[in-house]
Amino acid sequence: QSNVVIYGTLDAGIHKTSNSANTAIQEGGRDNSKLGFRGQEDLGNGLKALFHLEIRYEVDTGNIERSTRPLFQGQSRVGLQGGFGTVRLGRALTSLQETTTQFEPWSGMPNVAGFQTDLMVAGYRAAVSGSGSDPLGAAGNSGNRFANALWYNSPVFNGFQLNLNLGSKENNGLATAIVGRGTTVAPQYPAGSRAQAYPYSVSATYSAPGTMPQYAVYAGSERNSTEVKWHSVGAYYRPIPALKLMGSYGRQDMSHIRAINDTMKSWVLGANYNVGVGLVRFGYGQRDTDGEVKTKEISVGYEHNISPRTYLYLDLSQKKVPTSTAPASSNMNQNHYALGIHHNF
Amino acid sequence: QSNVVIYGTLDAGIHKTSNSANTAIQEGGRDNSKLGFRGQEDLGNGLKALFHLEIRYEVDTGNIERSTRPLFQGQSRVGLQGGFGTVRLGRALTSLQETTTQFEPWSGMPNVAGFQTDLMVAGYRAAVSGSGSDPLGAAGNSGNRFANALWYNSPVFNGFQLNLNLGSKENNGLATAIVGRGTTVAPQYPAGSRAQAYPYSVSATYSAPGTMPQYAVYAGSERNSTEVKWHSVGAYYRPIPALKLMGSYGRQDMSHIRAINDTMKSWVLGANYNVGVGLVRFGYGQRDTDGEVKTKEISVGYEHNISPRTYLYLDLSQKKVPTSTAPASSNMNQNHYALGIHHNF
Amino acid sequence: QSNVVIYGTLDAGIHKTSNSANTAIQEGGRDNSKLGFRGQEDLGNGLKALFHLEIRYEVDTGNIERSTRPLFQGQSRVGLQGGFGTVRLGRALTSLQETTTQFEPWSGMPNVAGFQTDLMVAGYRAAVSGSGSDPLGAAGNSGNRFANALWYNSPVFNGFQLNLNLGSKENNGLATAIVGRGTTVAPQYPAGSRAQAYPYSVSATYSAPGTMPQYAVYAGSERNSTEVKWHSVGAYYRPIPALKLMGSYGRQDMSHIRAINDTMKSWVLGANYNVGVGLVRFGYGQRDTDGEVKTKEISVGYEHNISPRTYLYLDLSQKKVPTSTAPASSNMNQNHYALGIHHNF
Repeated sequence: QSNVVIYGTLDAGIHKTSNSANTAIQEGGRDNSKLGFRGQEDLGNGLKALFHLEIRYEVDTGNIERSTRPLFQGQSRVGLQGGFGTVRLGRALTSLQETTTQFEPWSGMPNVAGFQTDLMVAGYRAAVSGSGSDPLGAAGNSGNRFANALWYNSPVFNGFQLNLNLGSKENNGLATAIVGRGTTVAPQYPAGSRAQAYPYSVSATYSAPGTMPQYAVYAGSERNSTEVKWHSVGAYYRPIPALKLMGSYGRQDMSHIRAINDTMKSWVLGANYNVGVGLVRFGYGQRDTDGEVKTKEISVGYEHNISPRTYLYLDLSQKKVPTSTAPASSNMNQNHYALGIHHNF
Repeated sequence: QSNVVIYGTLDAGIHKTSNSANTAIQEGGRDNSKLGFRGQEDLGNGLKALFHLEIRYEVDTGNIERSTRPLFQGQSRVGLQGGFGTVRLGRALTSLQETTTQFEPWSGMPNVAGFQTDLMVAGYRAAVSGSGSDPLGAAGNSGNRFANALWYNSPVFNGFQLNLNLGSKENNGLATAIVGRGTTVAPQYPAGSRAQAYPYSVSATYSAPGTMPQYAVYAGSERNSTEVKWHSVGAYYRPIPALKLMGSYGRQDMSHIRAINDTMKSWVLGANYNVGVGLVRFGYGQRDTDGEVKTKEISVGYEHNISPRTYLYLDLSQKKVPTSTAPASSNMNQNHYALGIHHNF
Repeated sequence: QSNVVIYGTLDAGIHKTSNSANTAIQEGGRDNSKLGFRGQEDLGNGLKALFHLEIRYEVDTGNIERSTRPLFQGQSRVGLQGGFGTVRLGRALTSLQETTTQFEPWSGMPNVAGFQTDLMVAGYRAAVSGSGSDPLGAAGNSGNRFANALWYNSPVFNGFQLNLNLGSKENNGLATAIVGRGTTVAPQYPAGSRAQAYPYSVSATYSAPGTMPQYAVYAGSERNSTEVKWHSVGAYYRPIPALKLMGSYGRQDMSHIRAINDTMKSWVLGANYNVGVGLVRFGYGQRDTDGEVKTKEISVGYEHNISPRTYLYLDLSQKKVPTSTAPASSNMNQNHYALGIHHNF
């Protein structure tokens, strides 16, 4: 019989965020919780077929992610790997967003203390109609993923790697029109719209040699189905093996769907420091969206490994976020505390 | 790779219940059908991390339980176990309801012939808006479980064990207001309400020594998110190893959401008798709800084990239930027949 | 621990169909994608308990099949197998449709190039309200399956086998009335209707000896929950081991729900030819629905096996289909191209 591997993550804890939509003590995770099935078949001559099916769910309620997302929200992909690289079809994180997780101090984990979701790709992701990797998809479906897409990862050549990702123009289920540069009566993207240009995501990386490279850099660009673009560059550096310093810069261009205030810039600096069985995470970043006061975020986290697969964590974060009343010319402090357990299997 | 265990149950059969909402011959199970994934990681010094993810579904339709419940309706929990006991976070059966399954003649299986769902916690569960363990949860979601909760099971100390369970005050998705002691215009719990007091469930048990104790007793109490309370005590006794006699009593206090008729009492007596490869189940119980005629139930069941993991079963039950026309001052006979197969894997 | 087997299929590719609802290049599969769990328990004396739980999903979006179908849309069945044959309860493909997959040139795979879904059981399946195996089921749920049903497969006796399948009259969730021979005001099947007669499906097969029989024949009949009937016969023949020639004929009787145009006839001829590591599929068929011009379909496909579990494929198909404007007295050409990868695990 075949050699299917079952893998996953459960992350559960309690957290509290002041000046947010829900300021009560809540149960929830810091990382995505996953239950995945993966396998590969050796085809000879270094060629193999491979697949991933990854369920995302909420440990605290037992439901699939946000109750609305696809069963295999994590990814569903099948393809071939060989000397030419890896080619896969299906649904998954975009190539650029997969790359940037290595350059973000919370490793791309989508929580308040992290920087990937809320600071680096926010606006692009959720703040604006037409944002996100799949804005023409079903409601609640958007985020950081392409459906109906193709992925290509080149082999690593002298430290260089190229990652390409091309979406289709299919109807992905847009239920509510996106007004964009149109009007309520004649929205730019009526319900059921298909992409007019192919969505894509591309990243190029260079890493120093070794399994734990001393440094690495990336540059990439992405265009979603409403032709919003996101460009990003970044680097990390390890002065000593225990310390990883990192930084990234991104620029988002919403001019295809907005007449004014169409640019968002963000930058993040961070560090990961291994101390005994612990890991300290630190980050500071800013997001500058046209027509809004800046968002500023500072976060510190500690992971205490109690085994190779299990750690306890504590995150503390403070954000200055625009007040919810537009025009957001003033901001307010949002304090976030989280404490939990993270288990891989 | 990790040692994930896949386990589960399929229960399918045919049943017929007279004087019920559907009196046709129906296909369906006697027990919950499950597909679960569980694992543990040894952390040394007797400490371990452990998790459970349990899908509930209907064998007859292939759908998730009631088509509306969370994917991992059975449970989704992660935590640590050691000399201090077991601590877990997530969603699962409440501590008290987990305890009472051992003292109920149908082992807590949720079917018409059993007593746990319909007789012991009915009213508390489903008959009244605001009942159930999670009445402020999404529609169809209620039942015997807490989401967003913490569980603690103490070590067994001289036969004694304590089980604690604390829910959060999170918004669990109440879609339709619960009028309760308010009015239609000003309901006690408007849509989207959060709990005003922390839901909890607690049970204490004492068991005689051995893997098949000669006797055991429990006492426990539970408060749901609308502050309805349920108190219960019970015991079992084995005069000979093949025979288990059991009884329990419960009292429910709905005064927080009802001005009148706020009390429900119930008691159940039962026996389990092993005869060769078979098991006979017997039970009799009554429920006395304020302002209603009593519900009386008598049931007998037989399980024929054709292997360690598979049995065939037959259940016969007669209930005197209140007629559906309120005030339910008269009752009617409801006869129930079920025949099926139960397979564990 | 038990011996659960995880199995499945991922099929992903790109396809394009002219003169269809969506003529863009699309990503999608040729075959159903599956993730299944199955197991069996040896009960001694040749008796065993067995189960199947099979998730169906779309690789391109990560969602469950059509976003609306039951989690275990593939099948959820449990039962016993022994000298008497196999008895199972649950949800699965009907007995007749399971049989016909062996006599159809695309092995019953539900794609445009194949003949089973669109040509042999179309109309019966989807074109008409009240069609499909489960027309009184929840929307999007219909298709080729019975829920709440019983299956019996006889032992093979001198090459003969009998397959029986009986559905229940349960309410399977019909949300929108089926007018049928009634009126909008008094529809034949109001929302929530139950079947008035038991749905059934039956097939009988005869196969020549051996694991790769030189020839086989079948005859069968099916009645769905709205009493639409489908009768079908077919045969295959292998003049040489590498070549399988096949043909089938079907007749559908919709007189229970239609006053006029109540008959649909269809026939398919096809061939499968193994050439080296490749397989060529060819088919031609016609469907003659009362009151409509004929549908004619010709298809050719090639599968290139790159391993025992993985193949690449190419399908080309041309259909003459009725124009969408009723009365469909004229037809148009629909050209279909598909290219993809099919991986079993």
